[in-house]
Amino acid sequence: MDPQTPRPGMPPDPALAGAVTIDDVRRAASVLDARANRTPVMTSRRLDELAGGRVHLKCENFQRVGAFKFRGAFNALARLEPEARRQGVLAYSSGNHAQAVALAGAELGVAAVIVMPDNAPGVKLRATRAYLEAAPAGSAVVTYDPATTVREELGARIAGERGLTIIPPYDHPDVIAGQGTAALELFEAVGELDWLFVCCGGGGLLSGCATVARAVCPGCRVVGVEPELGDDATRSFAAGTLQTVTNPATIADGARTPCLGRYTFAIVRERVDQMVVVSEGELARWTLFCLERLRMVVEPSGALGLAGAVRVGRSDPRAISGRRVGVIVSGGNLDLGMIDELRRLAGE
Amino acid sequence: MDPQTPRPGMPPDPALAGAVTIDDVRRAASVLDARANRTPVMTSRRLDELAGGRVHLKCENFQRVGAFKFRGAFNALARLEPEARRQGVLAYSSGNHAQAVALAGAELGVAAVIVMPDNAPGVKLRATRAYLEAAPAGSAVVTYDPATTVREELGARIAGERGLTIIPPYDHPDVIAGQGTAALELFEAVGELDWLFVCCGGGGLLSGCATVARAVCPGCRVVGVEPELGDDATRSFAAGTLQTVTNPATIADGARTPCLGRYTFAIVRERVDQMVVVSEGELARWTLFCLERLRMVVEPSGALGLAGAVRVGRSDPRAISGRRVGVIVSGGNLDLGMIDELRRLAGE
Repeated sequence: MDPQTPRPGMPPDPALAGAVTIDDVRRAASVLDARANRTPVMTSRRLDELAGGRVHLKCENFQRVGAFKFRGAFNALARLEPEARRQGVLAYSSGNHAQAVALAGAELGVAAVIVMPDNAPGVKLRATRAYLEAAPAGSAVVTYDPATTVREELGARIAGERGLTIIPPYDHPDVIAGQGTAALELFEAVGELDWLFVCCGGGGLLSGCATVARAVCPGCRVVGVEPELGDDATRSFAAGTLQTVTNPATIADGARTPCLGRYTFAIVRERVDQMVVVSEGELARWTLFCLERLRMVVEPSGALGLAGAVRVGRSDPRAISGRRVGVIVSGGNLDLGMIDELRRLAGE
Repeated sequence: MDPQTPRPGMPPDPALAGAVTIDDVRRAASVLDARANRTPVMTSRRLDELAGGRVHLKCENFQRVGAFKFRGAFNALARLEPEARRQGVLAYSSGNHAQAVALAGAELGVAAVIVMPDNAPGVKLRATRAYLEAAPAGSAVVTYDPATTVREELGARIAGERGLTIIPPYDHPDVIAGQGTAALELFEAVGELDWLFVCCGGGGLLSGCATVARAVCPGCRVVGVEPELGDDATRSFAAGTLQTVTNPATIADGARTPCLGRYTFAIVRERVDQMVVVSEGELARWTLFCLERLRMVVEPSGALGLAGAVRVGRSDPRAISGRRVGVIVSGGNLDLGMIDELRRLAGE
């Protein structure tokens, strides 16, 4: 087994947490300057009433490719050694990471091979191919049949044959440092915060943001938020050993990852204060709240942080009341055909 | 006939244009400080490619009540004489103006009577009533049967009986000055612009924004945008006499007004450079573009300015190419049940 692969039951390796520091995030911020969108921070009086505190939403749904993933992918590609850049990169993803690596490849002139299941939504396949049109020769979307093919094996084989560097979706120091720039911009825009709520799938965004909070605002309480149906990181955090989940049926597709990675487990365990879970109904309600009340398109994974903030505010009102609350809204790639299902789940 | 009522065929009265100056808009800006949202300015590389210039979207869909209307309504109520404030106000509207007056009344402690058709969307009736819950005693939504009742007559009768001040949706200097603060904030945020595109229904937003552009950026070309189906202001602008339209079947419900008002005709004629019209298909396509690509909810009226900018950019690419373009996105109260109809109109 690849020594890089996280094993169920393993403890976090504290030494790995040192691989991502606030200086790495600051370096990523200069790499991303004028390349990533400096996304707006939104507030809503209605939301403040519901949550109890003063909520500041860092809107990564308005990021390029519609999600924070662009930050980490671009930073990782920009920091490749010249030879690795010339050879190109490979990513496997059916989600926002695929588009992020494709666009970063096109912008930086790095050939990118994206491995996607052949049953991925047509709109995502088309968008990824569109980004690759401007990328160097050798770039392509490679599709596979998920019933017969293990994507990691296919990806490793292609990468090996062509000398490509695999860009993992979260468990990589440069990816984590890139994601952390979202929190850095949030603190720069609004100053000190008492709470910071961040969604957690593989833990890349959470690790990067927690690294920033610990350094620039040590009093800020950092909370990771998962769907109840995919609560592996919450259990890992509590147990101190890596727990997993298999294909959880949550609408938060960004949080269907099986477990934290080696770097992210170490960093989450060291720098995060608390993990909370939210139900599918809460996720659906807050996704609809964003759409109908805040007039912005947020995908269910993107509403995790907001749902977590309200959940904590309701279970312990005095802890949040009147406090300054930051929330990372992670992405906006919502399938609009899903609105009826969201209403059903929300009990409307 | 009320001397305030605009008459078809009348010329604009240049003296009325003097009723709204940049100083009035600046005064409105201090009235609105910390009461209205300072809405973000969004940009999109994809949009710039499509439009040809560098487009800056002033996002009033993120304004309170979801539309710029809050600015004018709040300013008008805040500037009432003490006696008029004590008596209360009345507005008739089935749209965003109703909610704006209701919320402004609640915030300023002014009783507000809102006259709405009994077939108005349930969501709008409920939202308006919810705002009025925090307003002084005497506040209420009064519904009427539009088949048997003329709303202006009903409104005038109630206002007369109770001594209420009628707050018109656009043809009033304080309303116009309030709407102009949207453009003031845009210029403050982004500096000089070569073009400014603003939607036009009754012309309140367009008049206020044109007043600002003339004063703070005289070289900026101000363009009003209407739907082809409701092109009365475009025809009035060209003819120099007031033209009307009756119940145009456009999806841009904010532009279904019969004609410009007396103040707005005078100001549009003096301070606007050009009027353009866009088709229902263009409106649908740009509303969907905002939803799917910019991840923000915009109502069809709100997409008028954007559709106009792209229309002008395509008909005269050299005029827009590389230029700095401002667009006011006026509102975000989109009925999400309309998405299928938008796709049909957009030819998708």
